[in-house]
Parts: sequence; structure tokens; C-alpha cells
Amino acid sequence: MPVTDRVKQILSWYPSDNPGTLTNLYRLLSTGVLAGTGKLVILPVDQGFEHGPIRSFGPNAPSQDPEYHVQLAIDSGCNAYAAPLGQLEAVAGKFAGQMPLILKLNNSDTLAKVDQPCSAVTGSVEDALRLGCVAIGYTIYPGSGQRNQMYQDLRELTLQAKRNGLAVIVWSYPRGSNLSKAGETAVDVASYAAHIAAQLGAHIIKVKPPTAHIEHDESKKVYEKYPAKLGTLADRTRHVIENTFGGRRVVIFSGGETKTTEALLEEVQQMAKGGSFGSIMGRNAFQRPRAEALKLLADVMAAFKSVP
Amino acid sequence: MPVTDRVKQILSWYPSDNPGTLTNLYRLLSTGVLAGTGKLVILPVDQGFEHGPIRSFGPNAPSQDPEYHVQLAIDSGCNAYAAPLGQLEAVAGKFAGQMPLILKLNNSDTLAKVDQPCSAVTGSVEDALRLGCVAIGYTIYPGSGQRNQMYQDLRELTLQAKRNGLAVIVWSYPRGSNLSKAGETAVDVASYAAHIAAQLGAHIIKVKPPTAHIEHDESKKVYEKYPAKLGTLADRTRHVIENTFGGRRVVIFSGGETKTTEALLEEVQQMAKGGSFGSIMGRNAFQRPRAEALKLLADVMAAFKSVP
Amino acid sequence: MPVTDRVKQILSWYPSDNPGTLTNLYRLLSTGVLAGTGKLVILPVDQGFEHGPIRSFGPNAPSQDPEYHVQLAIDSGCNAYAAPLGQLEAVAGKFAGQMPLILKLNNSDTLAKVDQPCSAVTGSVEDALRLGCVAIGYTIYPGSGQRNQMYQDLRELTLQAKRNGLAVIVWSYPRGSNLSKAGETAVDVASYAAHIAAQLGAHIIKVKPPTAHIEHDESKKVYEKYPAKLGTLADRTRHVIENTFGGRRVVIFSGGETKTTEALLEEVQQMAKGGSFGSIMGRNAFQRPRAEALKLLADVMAAFKSVP
Amino acid sequence: MPVTDRVKQILSWYPSDNPGTLTNLYRLLSTGVLAGTGKLVILPVDQGFEHGPIRSFGPNAPSQDPEYHVQLAIDSGCNAYAAPLGQLEAVAGKFAGQMPLILKLNNSDTLAKVDQPCSAVTGSVEDALRLGCVAIGYTIYPGSGQRNQMYQDLRELTLQAKRNGLAVIVWSYPRGSNLSKAGETAVDVASYAAHIAAQLGAHIIKVKPPTAHIEHDESKKVYEKYPAKLGTLADRTRHVIENTFGGRRVVIFSGGETKTTEALLEEVQQMAKGGSFGSIMGRNAFQRPRAEALKLLADVMAAFKSVP
Amino acid sequence: MPVTDRVKQILSWYPSDNPGTLTNLYRLLSTGVLAGTGKLVILPVDQGFEHGPIRSFGPNAPSQDPEYHVQLAIDSGCNAYAAPLGQLEAVAGKFAGQMPLILKLNNSDTLAKVDQPCSAVTGSVEDALRLGCVAIGYTIYPGSGQRNQMYQDLRELTLQAKRNGLAVIVWSYPRGSNLSKAGETAVDVASYAAHIAAQLGAHIIKVKPPTAHIEHDESKKVYEKYPAKLGTLADRTRHVIENTFGGRRVVIFSGGETKTTEALLEEVQQMAKGGSFGSIMGRNAFQRPRAEALKLLADVMAAFKSVP
Repeated sequence: MPVTDRVKQILSWYPSDNPGTLTNLYRLLSTGVLAGTGKLVILPVDQGFEHGPIRSFGPNAPSQDPEYHVQLAIDSGCNAYAAPLGQLEAVAGKFAGQMPLILKLNNSDTLAKVDQPCSAVTGSVEDALRLGCVAIGYTIYPGSGQRNQMYQDLRELTLQAKRNGLAVIVWSYPRGSNLSKAGETAVDVASYAAHIAAQLGAHIIKVKPPTAHIEHDESKKVYEKYPAKLGTLADRTRHVIENTFGGRRVVIFSGGETKTTEALLEEVQQMAKGGSFGSIMGRNAFQRPRAEALKLLADVMAAFKSVP
Repeated sequence: MPVTDRVKQILSWYPSDNPGTLTNLYRLLSTGVLAGTGKLVILPVDQGFEHGPIRSFGPNAPSQDPEYHVQLAIDSGCNAYAAPLGQLEAVAGKFAGQMPLILKLNNSDTLAKVDQPCSAVTGSVEDALRLGCVAIGYTIYPGSGQRNQMYQDLRELTLQAKRNGLAVIVWSYPRGSNLSKAGETAVDVASYAAHIAAQLGAHIIKVKPPTAHIEHDESKKVYEKYPAKLGTLADRTRHVIENTFGGRRVVIFSGGETKTTEALLEEVQQMAKGGSFGSIMGRNAFQRPRAEALKLLADVMAAFKSVP
Repeated sequence: MPVTDRVKQILSWYPSDNPGTLTNLYRLLSTGVLAGTGKLVILPVDQGFEHGPIRSFGPNAPSQDPEYHVQLAIDSGCNAYAAPLGQLEAVAGKFAGQMPLILKLNNSDTLAKVDQPCSAVTGSVEDALRLGCVAIGYTIYPGSGQRNQMYQDLRELTLQAKRNGLAVIVWSYPRGSNLSKAGETAVDVASYAAHIAAQLGAHIIKVKPPTAHIEHDESKKVYEKYPAKLGTLADRTRHVIENTFGGRRVVIFSGGETKTTEALLEEVQQMAKGGSFGSIMGRNAFQRPRAEALKLLADVMAAFKSVP
Repeated sequence: MPVTDRVKQILSWYPSDNPGTLTNLYRLLSTGVLAGTGKLVILPVDQGFEHGPIRSFGPNAPSQDPEYHVQLAIDSGCNAYAAPLGQLEAVAGKFAGQMPLILKLNNSDTLAKVDQPCSAVTGSVEDALRLGCVAIGYTIYPGSGQRNQMYQDLRELTLQAKRNGLAVIVWSYPRGSNLSKAGETAVDVASYAAHIAAQLGAHIIKVKPPTAHIEHDESKKVYEKYPAKLGTLADRTRHVIENTFGGRRVVIFSGGETKTTEALLEEVQQMAKGGSFGSIMGRNAFQRPRAEALKLLADVMAAFKSVP
Repeated sequence: MPVTDRVKQILSWYPSDNPGTLTNLYRLLSTGVLAGTGKLVILPVDQGFEHGPIRSFGPNAPSQDPEYHVQLAIDSGCNAYAAPLGQLEAVAGKFAGQMPLILKLNNSDTLAKVDQPCSAVTGSVEDALRLGCVAIGYTIYPGSGQRNQMYQDLRELTLQAKRNGLAVIVWSYPRGSNLSKAGETAVDVASYAAHIAAQLGAHIIKVKPPTAHIEHDESKKVYEKYPAKLGTLADRTRHVIENTFGGRRVVIFSGGETKTTEALLEEVQQMAKGGSFGSIMGRNAFQRPRAEALKLLADVMAAFKSVP
């Protein structure tokens, strides 16, 4: 499809990237129902690794098959499909080119208990290239004592990805002994987490929907002196995006744990209104029966399409 | 031998691998008594390293000789023979080509006590290539605090193996302070362990026979809401396989500790009925006198052959 | 512009560097209002990473945009602009060549609590080269138990930078359990910190303004026997510079936390009088409204220009 | 000298090695008094590093000179001389080709106390090649919590050595908090230790003389059910060798601490009778006056020669 | 200058080194007042890094300038000048070729407290080559729990240095929780420390003057049975040298902390009488006024010259 003004504008925010990476960002933004709008809905399926196959795929048995997911992403008109190494290898050769693929390069599981959260690096840029991916994905846990390890691994992978014309997507989940449970999604912490991902060179950043909680006293002091509009989820979405290079980075939000369709769509609409560049929709999509998932994804895409 | 439809089907589950790796998977599936059936019986002999030579070979003195094992694998019609570096080097040059070889790339011993289980990497992909192997083997202990180290070492080895046309076989044994003893073979944990191996890019996955124990509360909740058939070993075998990419990965099971022939064959029949792709049969084979071992392996292969 | 005698003299202090590095040092010293004077004012903006975007940019919303800062550096006539990877990537391609850029290669955040301070390496020399930078920047925390890690990472980066014709700027902040809070800026410790940076191969060194506090008994004994003039900030500035290769290295000072304009300028004048080669001015500049920031930077530059 | 049938047989146990490595094994087996017999006496001198020069060379002052040892090895008709880097460098160029040399690649000292024993890697395969060595030597401490580090370093060195046509000799000394003092030389542990070295790819394995102590309950159970002849040192020597690939690896034994000549020769005769492939004789040789050492080594070699 | 017999003899102790390294050893031995005598006086200036600039250079302000030291080494007729990276870079290009340079490749500071002493690696062999050095210098702390790290880093650097024709100088300072304070300079420990450096491949070894203290019981037992002459510093110097490859390695001694000129010269004369190959003279030289330093160095050199 011909490039739209909005896509051109978004590409202009990455003036230091080589044509290879810009090409793959263009592909991400020019695929599916939202093609050309500058919005993205990505289907990520790493829950089998992260939470185990029973919790992840038990509610919808056909989803045990890796082909189920990439087909769902294609049929629903997603912009891209993201998964760990094995799950992508199971489909990349057969579905070659039909859907932009994102190789998730690190993963954790819930069998081991670790003091300081840090995912294992489970794939490489060479894997992403040989599988025909448009981007790599990587999760950081700002707040963890293993922070340096994660940032440094990401730095190396990011350098390789950009050298080879891939885009970089960072999942940024604050977590660690220095943060309260509520603090993990606090609006100031979510803003900080998105900002760190941007500083580390991410093209696209994924965070959780920010709550009205404010974790740090230093943040409160700033908000007292320089008030910010934080009342609604739309406000907080806009706040996070502004704190991520003043809106010059693509920030998308997850749906989090499974919830009612109404609650989910209400949340998406708020975030769309707040300027969110899109959603990552995993369990909420593939744990529903396929027809319901297609309907939900269509509704989510419509919500983003309705916002200029 | 000419390729069978079943082997073609199995190879189709690995659409992203290069012809070199597919060729070696083909060799594994087209050797021995079970050639062409899509089933596998592998003779693994790393117990000398893992438990010491006295416990391993004491019961059957001729088995101290590395040639004993590869000859047993050949004579019984196994699909492949797996061993650590030294034991393969002792035979590879002499038996070149007579039997598909798998180099076991990491090993533990029982002389040292370690807090968080993690095998030492004791071989390399270059070793596997110079010894003419068809595959590398690697053991992970999901649940260990050393998880990241193991997954990351495996990732590097897997990348090299696939680049060089080798297949990858992962032994996945849940173990660690976060798991109860019963939990190590629980059906939910076994499913998770097999799934992780698949996500890490394994072509063939080896787990222990799953028990009816359910380790995690989250699993129980899913089973309550979405009941799964788990009553017999056959059921549980099928459950593990379904949770490993919906059956699109070759999952085989071990016999575990030495037991009576009847108990062993009963177990194998259950697993064959449940769709198991085969068995790994070590101590139960080589600790018996050779004639008995040949008989046992023949019976095991017959059990798999009798299931379509 | 034609090279001045002072710039020639300063370049002569680096007789072992290749022409590429000397060229980039020349560029740093020949840009902006202070071009040719041998003095430098650098705008560093890594506070979004180090303290979070809310504390950093909340007081002046337009500063959320990475373009704001490089434009401020250009318009105010700074010698260079320093920032972490993501923030430089956001502008390097668009502003190519308009302002000497410094890629800050390591960064910390305040979300995690770490026992022994050590920043994460977040960029590489290859990044600095592809972004057209004149120098790399790196922070060390002498006094930290992670000292060896930091010095060794810096050593590798410095070697690569010099091999490729880049200059090296080291931020040296004493910190760690072996130092009192007052000791972090003590005149003896500041001297030591600047000296270490010089020994590690830095071309330009940035420290905090030294206080009259003396941290170590061994220092006191030396001062008793060999008195040093340490009464004013100008005296202490000169002392630090003399202790950094007898004045043969470019040492610049930070303004530290936001303070009143008067206090800040008074401090700058004292340091200029003491022979400081310039200032690094971050929060004190970009947290003010743009007009005020331009005025402040002009006054700071004037202070340095007024000293021969 | 022309190859003997016994040497041919021994070389046939290493069917996977390249001609370079076989050539160096041949050189080891075809040098000195025992040339062609398949037996080996090696002079190892790393005690200066391991126990310090005073304890090691104090009893015989001329032995402080590195040339003393290589000359002793030549004059006594040893098969090879083994030493750490510096000590070999001191003689390799001058005595080039006169004696097969083994570079000991790791070493410990007794100045530091370490919790989990692990020698430092003090040389490289490149060093062994440039010094004209026939083999590398490496010490492992099975039973140490640092096991993985040692095995993995050895794996890398072994791969390089074999790629470059060198032989690999492993000293295997069980040690660590999980073993009793008596257990370090227990016959079951010694067997296990020798077996591990074989699995790691060693061509020649050196262990301590096994005692009648049995360390592990699991071993006792096996011996109860499958009795082994373990009464004399000759029996136990044979047992260790059988447990090391059924006798298809060259296993040699040390003399241990200095003792009376009678006791030492009695021990050697027992081990020769039990099928030992030879001895490593360090302190017992070089701490005696040269004439006595030559006599002792001649007697030891005679003992091995007298056994077919 | 034409080579002397003594220099020829010393070079013959390094029969395994390439001509590049022998050339640089020749340069070290053929420079300055002691050229051709086989004795060495080296000026090392790393105290700015190790103890800070105030303690080091405060007593003699002109010594803050890096040029001061290399000029002092030239004017006094030293054999070589040793310093860390930054300090050598400050002079190498300007004084190119006028004085053999030694790049000190690791350094510690006194700002941080570390449990197990281990210097940071602060330079590389590539740095030494680009700066035109004749040798690398490296400090080990035998006795430290970080021993393996230090020995292994040195091993890698030594291999690179010798491959590239550089000489290797090791400072060996016993230190660690397993040694008493007196033990750090005990004659048995000093001997052991010098021996370890020789084993690690050092061409030139620097230790502290040995005291009459004997640290280890095992040493005492040897001395009881095999008495050694240890009464005077000359005796102990000879003892250390004999324990370092029987005198086939160049061992030099430091002056230690600043002391009276008489005490210092007396010490030097004793060591010269004991066969010391020379002195490393840092603080005792550069903390004196220049004229006094030149006089002292002349006297030290005279002391070594007066011994055949």
C-alpha cells in the first residue's frame, strides 16, 4: 500500500536508523486492518513459556497449536505476531511473508523462583534474520537488581538488530524489591519505564496501562509544583506517551490479565483516546473461542481507527 | 529407505529448518527397527558420568567398554545412540556411519553437591560435527535458579547446531527448590517442561513419564474449569504431547530407574497408546545381560510398532 | 575557524593520540561561543534516564522532546551536546553535523536499589561512530566495590574509541560505602577522582565542585606538611586541576542540583577564576524556560570568556 | 623406533583423533626406556607452583634450576616431562626435541585459601604449540563446587588441543566438601574420577593409588550384589582401569607424598601387576640426590617392563 | 651499544622467546647508567593511581606533571620508566624512543574497600604496542581469593605480549586473609611469590625486600632439615633469587615506603651484595626535590655497578 502521511511522520522520528530498519518499521505500520493509520495491534504469544501451556492454552485447546496463533493474527488483521524461538520456528517457513513476525528474544518461566527478576536470553538476532522477522522483542524489568545484565544484553542485541535492518520492540515492566506492588503500574513508574526503553534505543515500547497511583515522593513533589492531568486512563496514557520523548516514540499498551469484554474495550477506548499507538493483545484474544477472539480484535482495531 | 508419509509429516512440523537439519532428522527417523514409523527408541549412555561407572556398569561388567553400547544399539535396531564426548570419541571413528550418533553436550556428576542444579557443558557443536553426529543432546533443569545459564548456553549451542545442519534433542527435567519431589514428575510440570524445551527450539524432547500429581494451584484451577483426561498414563502422555505445540514436536519418554521387565513394558505400552513418539532406554537396557537387553528392546520397539 | 594558540597548546597535551582523535578534540574546542578559547560548556541530558522523565522534564514540558535539547545547545552556542543512546538517535540524523555530539555510554536509573553503584553499559563505540559523534562519555564511581567492572569496561571502550578517532570524556563521581557523604565532594577525593579518570585515559574529565572537606587522614598529613591553598572554591578548583596531570588535562565541573541563578553564576565565576576548563550544565539549563536558559548559558559562557 | 603391536593397539583406542594427535601419542609411547611397551613414566614438576619452591626444591638445591628436571627426565629415560608455563619456557628452546614436553595448563598455590578448590588456568594451547609440546595437562577436582568451571575450561582447551594435533592428559583428584578425606582416594571415588576424565575426552588419565575405602553407600550396594576383587592394590588398580572405558584408556598413577624407596617400589610393583600403564613420579624423584633419583626411576621403569 | 657477555647470558635464560621479545629485553638491559651490566633501575610512577595524587605528588609539586617523571628517568639514566595508561599517553608521543617504556596494565586505588585484593585491568597489549613500549607490567596478589582472576588475566596478556614481541614484568605482592601482615614480606612467602611470577611466564619479577620472618610451618620444617643462610638481607635476597628458577630470572626489589637516604642506600647495598638484579625506585625518588632524587638514583646505580 502507498505510504500515508502519518506513517511518514512516524518514520521521521527515527532519523538515525538505516533504510533496512525503516523498511521494517514501515512494514509493521502498513499491515492489517490498521495499516497506514499509525496504530498497531500486535498478537503476542509467549504465555506458554511464561506461565506454562496449561494456564495459557488450557482454556482453548486449539490454541496449543502454534499455527493457530499466526492464523488468528492473519485473519484478524493484526499488524504483527510475536513469539519465542520455538513457536516462531514452527510457523515461519510455512507462513513465510504472510504476517510480520517479531522474535521475542528473552523469556522467563514460573517454575523457578528468582530473587531478582531477569529473563533468559532465548534467541538471537541471527535467529530473527533467518526466520524472516521484521523486529526483535525483549523484556526489561526496570527496578530489578539484575538491571545491568538486562540492559547490557539488550544493548548488544539492539546494536546487532539495527546493523541488520531490524526494528526493536521493548516490553518494559517495572519489578523488583525497591517497588511496591502498586508501584509496578504507577503512572510515574510507568512513565519512567517507557522512557528507559526509549533511551535504550527501542523503536516501539510496550507498557502496562498506568494507574493513578504515584510511587515516588520526588514525583509527587514535581506534580504538586507542576500539575499534570492524570485523572482518567486517557490522561495517564497521554502522560506516559509525552514522557517518552515527547510523543516521538511508538508506545503501546497491554490488556493485562483476562477480563470481561466490556471492561477490556472500555480500557482500550480510554487508551485510544489518550493517544495510545495501539495494543498488545495476547491472552484476552487467544483464550477466547476463535470467533469471539476475531470479534474482539475487530472491536479493538475499530476503537483505534475511530481516533484520528 | 524410501521416505514414508509419516516421516514426511513429521518433517513438515519443522518448516524453518535448513535441509541439513531435516536430513539428520530424516536419518534419525529412518534407522533401525522403527525406521519410517515416526517412532524412535534411543539408547543413551551417560550414566557413567552422571552416577559413576560402578553404579552404572557394575551390574553388567562388559558394559564398561564403550564399544558394548554402540554395538547393542546397532544389534537391537535402535534409532540412535547418545553419549558424552569421551564415550563417543571411543567409537565414532571405528563405527563411522553404522549408527546415528547424538553427542550429549552437558553432564553432571554426583561427586559434588550443588545448590542449584546445572550441568557442566562438556562438548561443543564442533565436536558433534567432527564425530559425524546427527544431533546434539542437552539437559535443562527447569525450576533451577541456574535456569538462565542453562537456557542461554543451550540457545548458543542450538543456533550453532541448526546453522550446521544438526538436530537438537533436549532432555527436560524439572528440578529445583521451588518444586516438591512429587512435583518433578507432576503432569502439569512435565507438560510445562516439555513446552519450554519446544520453545527453546528443540526438535526432539525427552521427559519423564508424567504422574497424576498436579503441582501448581493455577493448574488445578484450569483443570477444574476445563477438565482434561488425566486418569491413565496413556492419557497423561497424550496431555503432555498436546501441550508441546499441539503434537507438532517429537516427544519421547524415559524409563527412569531400573524396574521389572513387566512393569517397564506395561509403562511403555501405556505411553505408546498415549501417542508417545518413543522411548529413551538406558539403564534398563545395558544393565541387563546382553541377550535380555536385546529381548527387552525388541519388545519395546514392538510395542511402539503395534500402535499406528 | 582557524586554530588558536590555546587550542594548539591543549592538543599538545595529547601527543599519543591519532589524528582522528585530535580532530575531534579540535572540533569540541572550536565550536560555539567559546570556540578557540580552550574553554567548554557542554549540555548533558541524561537525567531522563538517571532520575526519570517526571523529575527531569516535568518542570519544563517542552523539554520532553529530544529535539528541544540539541536545539538549545545550538542556539546557546554550547561546545557539545551529550545524551544516552535513544535520545541521540532521536536527533542525530536530522541535526547531522550542526552540533558536536557525545554519546553517553553508561547509565543508571533510580528504580532499582543496588548495593555497589555501577551503571549499565547502554551504548557502544560503534553506536557513537554511526551517529557521527565526536566523543564517548562514561561515568565511573571510584569508591564502589564494582570499581573493577567499571574501569575494565571503560578500558575496552576507550581503546576502541581511540582506535577509531573518538575523544573520551569521563564523568568521575566518587561514591561507595568506604566514603562519607561529605567525602564524595571532598577536595582530596575530588582530586583523586579526577586523577583516576586521567590515568584511565580520559581526554576530558568532569567532576563535581570540590568542597573544603578533607576526607582522608593521609591527605590531612600531607597538607599539614606541604600546605596547599584550599580556602576558596577557586583555590580548590585549581588544586583539582593541578592534581590531574599538573594541568595537562581538560577538567570541567558540573553545576550539580538546581539552585538560584545567582548562586550558580557565583560558583561558575569562582571555578573560572580557578582555571576550570568549563562547565557541564544540565538541569540548571533545561529545567528553566528556554529564554531563561539561553540567558543563563550566555552568562556562564561570558564568565569563562572573561578569564584569560 | 618402529611401532610395536602394543602401541598400535593403544592407538586403536582413539579412533576419532586426527593424525596429529595420534602422532603425539605415538611419540609419548615411543620415547625412553619404556618405549614401545605401552607403559609410561612421566616426570612432572609443578610442585614449585603448587607447594612453593622451598618445600619442593629445598631438599635438593640443584633442583631449583629448571634445566635440572628436563635433564633428569632425559637421562633417566622418562617418556615425557610436564611443567607449568614458565618452567617449560625456561628449557623448551634449548632442549628442543630432546624430550616430549607436556604443558600443565592450570595450577594452584597454597598461599590463598579457597572454599571450593579450582586451579587457575595459567597457560594456553597456543603456548603448548609454540613450545613444541606433545600434550597439554590439566587438573580437575571432581567433587568441587567449581566443577562446572573446571570441566568447561577443560572442554574448550581439549577441543583446541585436538584440533591442533595435541594429546590431552588429565590429572583427576577428587576433592570438595561433599567428600570425606578418606573418600578422596576411595576405590569407588577414584574409579569415578578416572571415568569422568575419560568422558571429558582425556587420552591419558592420572589418578592417585586407590585405597580399600568405599565412600558411597550406592557403591557398597553394587559391590554387595556384584562382588568385585578389591583386596590388594593390584586388584584396585585393575578395578579403576576397568571402570575407565573397560581398559581402553591409558591410566597412570602417582606416587603421592615422599616415602621410603622400599614402600614406593612395592606400591609401583603392585600397580604394575594390576595393569597400570605407568607412573607419574615427581617429588619422589627430584627431591632425592640425582644419583638416587636415577636409580629409583630405573627401578620403577624395570618394574613396569617386567609386566607383560 | 655492543652487547656484553652478561647481557648475552641473561638473554640465554629465555630460550623460548621470539626475537621481538629478546630485542626488547636487550633494550631494557642496554639503556642508561647500568647498560650492559645486567642490572636495572626502573622508575615506576603509578602511585597517583594507587594512593592518590595528593599523597603521591603533594610532597614535590612539580611531580604532578607526567613529563617530570619521564625526564627524571632520562636524566638519571634509568633503564626504563613504568606508568599506567593515561600517564604514559601523556608523554609517549613527545618522548618517543628516548626511554624504554613499560605500560602498567592493572591498577588499584584506595578509595574503595575490597575484601579480596584484585587490581582492575586498565590497559591492554594493544595500548602498549601503540605507545611504543618495550614491556607490559602487571601486579598479582598471591594469597588473594581473587587469585584465579588475576593469574588468568595475566596469562592472556602475557600470551599476547610475547606473541607481539613485548617483555613481561610482574609485580608480585603476597596479600590476603590467609597471610599475616608480617607474612607478606616473609622470606619464604617472598620466595614463593617470586617463583609464582616466574611460573606465570614473567621475564622480570619485582618483589619486596624479604624479612627474616618465616610464615609457614612447612617452610620451617624444610629449613630445619636443610638449613639455608637467611641471616642478612643479602642472604635473603640471594635465597629469593635462587628460588626463582635457580637464578635464571631477573628479580628486582622495591624500596618500599619513603625512608631516610642512609637506610635506603644501606638496604640497596645489601640487596646488591645478595645478587639483586636491581631496584624499582618510585616514591623514594620522585617525592624528593629533583636534585636530591638525581643524587639518590646515582648512588643506587653506583651500588649496583660496584657489584660484579
